Amino acid sequence: MATASNDLQQTSRSRLRRIRERGSYDRQVVNGILDAMPLCHIAYVVDGSPIVMPTLQWREGERVYWHASNGGRGIKAAMQQEVCLTVSLLDGLVLARSGLHHSANYRSVMLFGQPEVVNEPSQKAQKLNGLIDGLFPGRSAQLRPMKEEEIKQTAVLSLPITEGSAKVRNHGVVDDEADYDQPVWCGTLPLRTQVMPPEPDSRNLSGLDVPDYVKNFQIG
Amino acid sequence: MATASNDLQQTSRSRLRRIRERGSYDRQVVNGILDAMPLCHIAYVVDGSPIVMPTLQWREGERVYWHASNGGRGIKAAMQQEVCLTVSLLDGLVLARSGLHHSANYRSVMLFGQPEVVNEPSQKAQKLNGLIDGLFPGRSAQLRPMKEEEIKQTAVLSLPITEGSAKVRNHGVVDDEADYDQPVWCGTLPLRTQVMPPEPDSRNLSGLDVPDYVKNFQIG
Repeated sequence: MATASNDLQQTSRSRLRRIRERGSYDRQVVNGILDAMPLCHIAYVVDGSPIVMPTLQWREGERVYWHASNGGRGIKAAMQQEVCLTVSLLDGLVLARSGLHHSANYRSVMLFGQPEVVNEPSQKAQKLNGLIDGLFPGRSAQLRPMKEEEIKQTAVLSLPITEGSAKVRNHGVVDDEADYDQPVWCGTLPLRTQVMPPEPDSRNLSGLDVPDYVKNFQIG
Repeated sequence: MATASNDLQQTSRSRLRRIRERGSYDRQVVNGILDAMPLCHIAYVVDGSPIVMPTLQWREGERVYWHASNGGRGIKAAMQQEVCLTVSLLDGLVLARSGLHHSANYRSVMLFGQPEVVNEPSQKAQKLNGLIDGLFPGRSAQLRPMKEEEIKQTAVLSLPITEGSAKVRNHGVVDDEADYDQPVWCGTLPLRTQVMPPEPDSRNLSGLDVPDYVKNFQIG
């Protein structure tokens, strides 16, 4: 199966080009992928071994941000070294006439760099509101302000969108010419993230409407 | 926002328990997550820095498998060191009464270990067919056999499901008791992977029905 891996595992750090040197098309592709999917995977090295963890990322202009509880060993390690942040969407499965031409459609961005830590409390709060408002525009203004203690317990990190790469596969079956007489159904099974009906909290005050940013929420 | 990261980034390697020591419940949870989502992220270290790449994984009993083009630098690095393989599903977004109680529902598995390489060609072909049949039961028997050259160009790696952890968040809003009088809509937005109608390849031979394994395909 020629999956994402076949392209992606060819990538080595020396072959990565700087995104900012690749023009506006690449940046649009990268931004589009980052904005489509908050789920990301961040890798760093702890005691010489790699560890990769899921978290949510959000983009503000030229940077991606994420947050974590302050004080964990993992987050301390991430602050002191280069990390790799990857966002991937599995967009479909491609069924071909031979096993190894089976494939996956996907969009993926990898970013590399030394994370920068946001330290100033009001800036941290502003960035954290960016995660909420990025998903649900205007929601942060409807919430009570974050408390000093909450902000202190939270680490906010960021990476510039400069070093890395985007990969996209978005087409149907490609088989060896000799295989097209095989009597087997081939094609693409598209996948997408579906937003199901919102489930209100049982302790909502009465009379609250479902906000438009919930009704209109899209992802993927 | 108390996302996956808040729990997960607390994890340090020293705190990871061995899955096999944690009884059948944990193994069922781990297997269920691995079987629900082929997309995984594998991290390894290249030139001292972490890199995390998406690929597809599949499980056979006590091991997970993945494959890649043979010969890439990344895959060579992965063969010679411990890696971390993570599978994550974003199951929902949880909107709370304060910013930092916003959260995500998710299922996630992290596995660690030194990958084992499958070398024997017929065993490699059998494992690769396991990826196809895991997604589409019975399909590999409908395809022409893999060619020697194709098998040679493909690396098949595996990890035992022994060292790692599973994390699941699957509940609604949890707010500070003092915040429940806030007049803001709260609740959960469930997300799921939707399989869209199959798109047949334009070069399919006439008279081929859409197979049941395509019609009934589910993921997530």
